[in-house]
Amino acid sequence: MAVYTKMLSLRTSGQGTYEFTDEITDALRGSGLREGTVTVFCCHTSCSLVIMENADPSARHDLHYFLNKLVPTDDPHYTHTLEGPDDMTSHIKMALTRTAEVVPFVDGRLCLGTWQGVYLWEHRDASHSRRIVLSFQGE
Amino acid sequence: MAVYTKMLSLRTSGQGTYEFTDEITDALRGSGLREGTVTVFCCHTSCSLVIMENADPSARHDLHYFLNKLVPTDDPHYTHTLEGPDDMTSHIKMALTRTAEVVPFVDGRLCLGTWQGVYLWEHRDASHSRRIVLSFQGE
Amino acid sequence: MAVYTKMLSLRTSGQGTYEFTDEITDALRGSGLREGTVTVFCCHTSCSLVIMENADPSARHDLHYFLNKLVPTDDPHYTHTLEGPDDMTSHIKMALTRTAEVVPFVDGRLCLGTWQGVYLWEHRDASHSRRIVLSFQGE
Repeated sequence: MAVYTKMLSLRTSGQGTYEFTDEITDALRGSGLREGTVTVFCCHTSCSLVIMENADPSARHDLHYFLNKLVPTDDPHYTHTLEGPDDMTSHIKMALTRTAEVVPFVDGRLCLGTWQGVYLWEHRDASHSRRIVLSFQGE
Repeated sequence: MAVYTKMLSLRTSGQGTYEFTDEITDALRGSGLREGTVTVFCCHTSCSLVIMENADPSARHDLHYFLNKLVPTDDPHYTHTLEGPDDMTSHIKMALTRTAEVVPFVDGRLCLGTWQGVYLWEHRDASHSRRIVLSFQGE
Repeated sequence: MAVYTKMLSLRTSGQGTYEFTDEITDALRGSGLREGTVTVFCCHTSCSLVIMENADPSARHDLHYFLNKLVPTDDPHYTHTLEGPDDMTSHIKMALTRTAEVVPFVDGRLCLGTWQGVYLWEHRDASHSRRIVLSFQGE
């Protein structure tokens, strides 16, 4: 067995989900590993990860709509508002989704379902450069 | 250290939580491993995983009630509705729960708490056959 | 590659988030491993994990506020209420957050972002002793 770590830097341009399944697939190929898992880790508390349908964009559109409705920016009880109205809501949205995902692979291929894609979910309005760590373990 | 991968197929019959802790325990025994982790991965975007109390069924009953209240089917703003009113809500419920769980094991036994069971959470009304990947790593 | 497992026991005193990043860092040092992942696993269904900003306490204050608003204790439809009004809400809050987190490490250091801390999220009102399993894998 072996470990292989790869750092990614992803550019976001406002709230939304950004697929990076291809970057993970490329890194898996680079690792030379055939069977094991990849841990996908998001190094931030104002964006998060989700594995979501990548066929019909309307599904992600509705997902964004729902989370924005669930976590409104206009709640007067927030105290952590130094960076603007999307500051606290970003942390809450992160906490309700995921910081780490772990995806198995077999025969050198990710065990994702037919419609599953791995997404970075940006919760801030401004553009950001986001760091993702991929840790492959296997043989 | 070694890797051992096992594919499960679980049959669901409508919305609800389906425990499959025993299937994981059986696969752990089959792996011959004594210490490490098992990654439990759900290959779908309309069902998910949760580790929940398995003592009193009323806890899961109330959990189902809460999530259905939180994610109502009658929101007229959904656009991803091709497969019916439980289509978009299934994706949202999945995103709010978990696609992967990772459970350590020691001395050949899962480190689950006394009342913890691993559940597949089906969010669709119709019956489905669901694929779960178990990736054991350890020694 | 090697496995190293460490059990933690954390004392909580009512609802809130309790950071234990230092305990994980100490255990990583004790493992002697330089590159790999640590699985952090919470052995309970009435508390959970979250990786959250550890700079400004107001962010966690607002996070607690939001989750309490989202999961109110006074819903008359709950049936799982034997242990009091914070019984069922604890399970729901756990299901909406995380039971396991997996954090990569490189050069003997956790790959956490500048402001990321690992927290145990206690959802019960009473004091509890909580078991956490750390499973390190790497080389």
